[in-house]
Amino acid sequence: MDEFIKQLASSAPVPGGGGAGAVIGSIGAALCSMVANLTSGKKKYEAYQADIDVVLERTASSLQNLLALAEKDAEVFGPLSKAYGIPKDDPGRDEILEAALAAACAVPLEIMEEIESITDILSILSEKGTKLAVSDVGVAASAFRSAAESAALNVYINTKLMKNRDLAEKANKKAETILNKAVPACEKIYIQVKESLK
Amino acid sequence: MDEFIKQLASSAPVPGGGGAGAVIGSIGAALCSMVANLTSGKKKYEAYQADIDVVLERTASSLQNLLALAEKDAEVFGPLSKAYGIPKDDPGRDEILEAALAAACAVPLEIMEEIESITDILSILSEKGTKLAVSDVGVAASAFRSAAESAALNVYINTKLMKNRDLAEKANKKAETILNKAVPACEKIYIQVKESLK
Repeated sequence: MDEFIKQLASSAPVPGGGGAGAVIGSIGAALCSMVANLTSGKKKYEAYQADIDVVLERTASSLQNLLALAEKDAEVFGPLSKAYGIPKDDPGRDEILEAALAAACAVPLEIMEEIESITDILSILSEKGTKLAVSDVGVAASAFRSAAESAALNVYINTKLMKNRDLAEKANKKAETILNKAVPACEKIYIQVKESLK
Repeated sequence: MDEFIKQLASSAPVPGGGGAGAVIGSIGAALCSMVANLTSGKKKYEAYQADIDVVLERTASSLQNLLALAEKDAEVFGPLSKAYGIPKDDPGRDEILEAALAAACAVPLEIMEEIESITDILSILSEKGTKLAVSDVGVAASAFRSAAESAALNVYINTKLMKNRDLAEKANKKAETILNKAVPACEKIYIQVKESLK
């Protein structure tokens, strides 16, 4: 963990904000998994065991996907950085840069889709998860929100430079649509958990 | 990193949501450090070098503090968990539990103070940091917000059970005050970065 943070803090090209957002999302998924693990097998919650099993399966998969996307984000940065380095008068520059930008904004969009697909778990856990870990559901909600916001910024910084405005607008719209759905969903759970604790 | 996430996802008592929030904060501090490192020594930003040096120093220290607080959060959980295990009719239970709860809510309060002390760096970087990494400033803002929210929930879940309501109310008020300051400050930078990219 310290090693990742140290690398992130340096001027090394990767990891950057895109990967950081995916890691924040994986922290959220891990917390959901933890709450499900703490609920699983408890007599008090046995009526929910089937739901909890589904949560365990989905969070395990989501967590792996998000960590893989953090790595993929680092992989697409190399070609992008190289494309920026091509002299501006090189006739091949535009095409190569355009492809690198498209790849670089596809990864945060995938992160957003992953976050979108997992946010419903928050309400399952806030309803059916052990009450002893309710604060962790709120932390997961806050982390998912941050992951979605972080990924959105990484879509926009890449689409901003794209010459293919159709593709750029399509990607921006997709990001905005997910953001408009995921942020209020996360905020709702966070507020609900906060109110329940005060 | 994978190891931390795996541990977090398990039913192991630590790390939990408190430590996770501190790690999210350290990711934000690391991104601020990265932006400062990418700005430092660049001719275009030489007028800001003194500010950037201060940012580098402050983020390095904050990052270490937050990682240390993540560990400290794990350390105070042991005694708290043990205190919960004391039979309810044990006459010594209340005092031991009360002390463990006080220790367990002191750590997230320290996390909040650290986040509060570092959020002004976001506006320094959004003004004076390299524009190439502006999205990373936005991601850091979103991460600081999530760290503050996460820590607040971990204050509330511990104060809720405290018998000493004066101490509990004082801790809650401190958390709420920092939250009311840090969240809008982070939100402002996030929105500003987002608007600049669209």
